[in-house]
Amino acid sequence: MPLVRIDIQEGRSPAELRLIADTVQDVMRDVFAAPQGDRYQIITEHPVGHIIVEDSGLGFERTAGVTVIQIFQQGRSTSQKQAAYGQLAKRLEAVCGIRPEDLIVSVISNKHADWSFGLGRAQFLDGDL
Amino acid sequence: MPLVRIDIQEGRSPAELRLIADTVQDVMRDVFAAPQGDRYQIITEHPVGHIIVEDSGLGFERTAGVTVIQIFQQGRSTSQKQAAYGQLAKRLEAVCGIRPEDLIVSVISNKHADWSFGLGRAQFLDGDL
Amino acid sequence: MPLVRIDIQEGRSPAELRLIADTVQDVMRDVFAAPQGDRYQIITEHPVGHIIVEDSGLGFERTAGVTVIQIFQQGRSTSQKQAAYGQLAKRLEAVCGIRPEDLIVSVISNKHADWSFGLGRAQFLDGDL
Repeated sequence: MPLVRIDIQEGRSPAELRLIADTVQDVMRDVFAAPQGDRYQIITEHPVGHIIVEDSGLGFERTAGVTVIQIFQQGRSTSQKQAAYGQLAKRLEAVCGIRPEDLIVSVISNKHADWSFGLGRAQFLDGDL
Repeated sequence: MPLVRIDIQEGRSPAELRLIADTVQDVMRDVFAAPQGDRYQIITEHPVGHIIVEDSGLGFERTAGVTVIQIFQQGRSTSQKQAAYGQLAKRLEAVCGIRPEDLIVSVISNKHADWSFGLGRAQFLDGDL
Repeated sequence: MPLVRIDIQEGRSPAELRLIADTVQDVMRDVFAAPQGDRYQIITEHPVGHIIVEDSGLGFERTAGVTVIQIFQQGRSTSQKQAAYGQLAKRLEAVCGIRPEDLIVSVISNKHADWSFGLGRAQFLDGDL
């Protein structure tokens, strides 16, 4: 936790995809309070035309590099979310060449009881975490 | 926002998939309060057997045309949700030939702070939206 | 409802995938209060490297068998969630050979108004369920 879904258009190499995932994880760790080893990411590549994104009237030009990041988590504050959006845009551009205009991020929240990280235990409730 | 995931079985042409996405977006705009350009859709095609759906005892016959639409959004009312379900069923049948018995829709809600539509900004908080 | 997403690495046969889905559904029915026929599952297979999971510092060794189960539902209690985590780990190991160390489960909750199981109706609100 967080559990992060990265949806992206086909065309990047495995190394490029890994770099995107690593960069996202760096942001989770640095500004989203993810502890060491707290990494849960699912990358899904989509054919052209399967990610359809407009601009909400904000004037962004979207390209084939459009990247949708959905973060399932519990407990982060508004300021942590804002910091994550900012750092994701900044670092994904600097490290991976993803245009900030092509980055959409959405957070979904749940609670402590909603997570099992292994062994069928609810680690937040059992005192393991 | 809304961010809409459309999960569907393989076998449709790109044009058919696009028509489904366009029809879903028309409903988002007409009865779900999506402003102009507010479009965020991810279509995922699945091999036969990867979408497994029964009928909750409601007596629906499900077919290979089964379509699962998951809508991540904030702020819609119960009546807006009900209107969206109804219009999705009606229009996806009329325009795309999807049987209303094959349509499952689920909504997940978050808050203003949970969205960044580009540039690493939280547009609902920053006053951009 | 529940709507269950099963994300798993490529390499299993269709029969193996079906057995995993069946086993998950058995747990939904037996300890998660899913009525007869209440089954909504989407399996997504991912290439090697597209599911990236560490251990949250809990000391788990993750393998290629890593399995992420995301459950969208409404109404279950903490004890039902804990029972589901435990039984998923136990049965997926016994029946499908998935190591309990490789199983991550996360629950996301919504409300009665957030579900349409067919025909464009909100069955929980309309009295059908």
